[in-house]
Amino acid sequence: MADDAASGEERIIALFRSLATHPGAFGLMDDAAILTPPDGSDVVLKTDAIIGGVHFFADDPADAVARKALRVNLSDLAAKGAKPAGFLMSLAVARFDETWLADFARGLGEDAEAFGCPLLGGDTVATSGPTVVAISAVGLVPRGTMVMRSGARPGDAVLVTGTVGDAVLGLKLRREPAAAARWGLTPAMQRHAAARYLVPQPRNAVAEALRAFASGGMDVSDGLVGDLGKLALAAGVAAEVELERVPLSEAARAAVTAEPDLLEALVTGGDDYEILCTMAPGNVASFCAAAAAAGVAATEIGRVAAGEGTRFRRGGQPVRFAHGSYSHL
Amino acid sequence: MADDAASGEERIIALFRSLATHPGAFGLMDDAAILTPPDGSDVVLKTDAIIGGVHFFADDPADAVARKALRVNLSDLAAKGAKPAGFLMSLAVARFDETWLADFARGLGEDAEAFGCPLLGGDTVATSGPTVVAISAVGLVPRGTMVMRSGARPGDAVLVTGTVGDAVLGLKLRREPAAAARWGLTPAMQRHAAARYLVPQPRNAVAEALRAFASGGMDVSDGLVGDLGKLALAAGVAAEVELERVPLSEAARAAVTAEPDLLEALVTGGDDYEILCTMAPGNVASFCAAAAAAGVAATEIGRVAAGEGTRFRRGGQPVRFAHGSYSHL
Repeated sequence: MADDAASGEERIIALFRSLATHPGAFGLMDDAAILTPPDGSDVVLKTDAIIGGVHFFADDPADAVARKALRVNLSDLAAKGAKPAGFLMSLAVARFDETWLADFARGLGEDAEAFGCPLLGGDTVATSGPTVVAISAVGLVPRGTMVMRSGARPGDAVLVTGTVGDAVLGLKLRREPAAAARWGLTPAMQRHAAARYLVPQPRNAVAEALRAFASGGMDVSDGLVGDLGKLALAAGVAAEVELERVPLSEAARAAVTAEPDLLEALVTGGDDYEILCTMAPGNVASFCAAAAAAGVAATEIGRVAAGEGTRFRRGGQPVRFAHGSYSHL
Repeated sequence: MADDAASGEERIIALFRSLATHPGAFGLMDDAAILTPPDGSDVVLKTDAIIGGVHFFADDPADAVARKALRVNLSDLAAKGAKPAGFLMSLAVARFDETWLADFARGLGEDAEAFGCPLLGGDTVATSGPTVVAISAVGLVPRGTMVMRSGARPGDAVLVTGTVGDAVLGLKLRREPAAAARWGLTPAMQRHAAARYLVPQPRNAVAEALRAFASGGMDVSDGLVGDLGKLALAAGVAAEVELERVPLSEAARAAVTAEPDLLEALVTGGDDYEILCTMAPGNVASFCAAAAAAGVAATEIGRVAAGEGTRFRRGGQPVRFAHGSYSHL
């Protein structure tokens, strides 16, 4: 409640002002931002928060924390086929450390530019608890074209982008570095897994292809197995997946070869931020080609069927999972 | 990471599902929400978080915490002349207490209905720190009509809605109940001040009148004195206020009569959530009439002038404030 304090707040706003490149952000000089959607648009809205000690480690680099906070939301826009338009951020910081905040702002700004998603407005406060970064992302789609969870139809193919399980592998290695030797992971494999946990790679490059070819979709944030269950539930269908077809990175393949039971953790663990989608079988080749042209691999892993629930097979045998998906509560 | 945990998350979503009355919220069954603005609209976006121990007391009733979290954002929409369209919420809860959460959801739902601002989507996670409620509010205005901070012009009148200083009075009484006797406050006055701190009353009822008559505006969240300074800065003008004209409640008047120096705290303290606005003098009567018709008092308190900075007078004498405004850092 002092001028020093007020100028502290002003200094924080100044750190973030360069990110507010959208004309409707008014250089963070107004109370609210304006977005002017092209006529005939739907505005796609999503919020997700990350918390120190839950979604990231307190000693993670500040710029990586910022990138993760934005990217988990960008991933949802991607899965919905939406083009990013901008984001709002509420930042509750554990301590007022200008170096940390400057690094945070730099990482956030680089990603905002890379993904074409400028800061529209925000709010920074101090908290006595862990740092909380709550971002609301705003995207645009032509009216009526958002890719829904509920769009899957019996007979559709099930696809997933990229590779599954790297983030949970990276998290396990962070908690138990000695596991790398047991799993026979090279240093490059360890770095790959660590990076995938620290900073996800949202698949915004395939948003347009999803709108063109997918019947349904969502991002994989709580584990492939659990998220496929949510997709099937929303669409009122069943889904079957052959685990051999689930795309794994070299690191994940090496680890599963050394410890076959690890596969369950990889397909049920969270933080993949890949896209799970369904489409008519006739669209698969076109979608995969469009995704490849955008630099993203897409792999067919199963099939939608009439009925309900999910079924997984490995080596022709049904597999049941003790833990369906990651949950934060 | 267990089924019990997952069903805990599912139970929380179920608590909030009844608030997701907007068709674009898809009953919280999809990853993102859709808002379809009428063609020719601007989307107005604002985020503000409240934190236990900073913006509310940890033992405040859960429904009051929810109302405050939503209303501080509704207040910004009101000041911008925007009609609420919906909101996103990131809730980080200190403990997973279903009774607390049910009360929270009830208060939030009642306000969402009362203000016509349904829940569009959200995210609930556990935190080891204080509870954080980060809400992003979405409003709509006809294109190009948002009321800006920067709109004030020399010669404009300065007005404020409602009464100023009640929330800071309520906060002082909460910290030092004995002050009530010193200030000669009746029980009704004490309840008034306490209620104004606990649950703000955003002035969404005057949003349309603001768009019709105001040249500039913002909500008073960090104190009248400091916020007037921000408004003047954004508009590149000076502003002069006669403190005798600042509207005070009976409670605040009684307290200032008993302790005249208290006035400084009332006009620099935060949490008023009134609207500070400027308009051509010829619009004042029409605006006040429209506001009165909507049940909101509006009072002319000063004048915009050429130049920069703010000037306050009391009994004809200039007044300087040691502390300009409340800041959370």
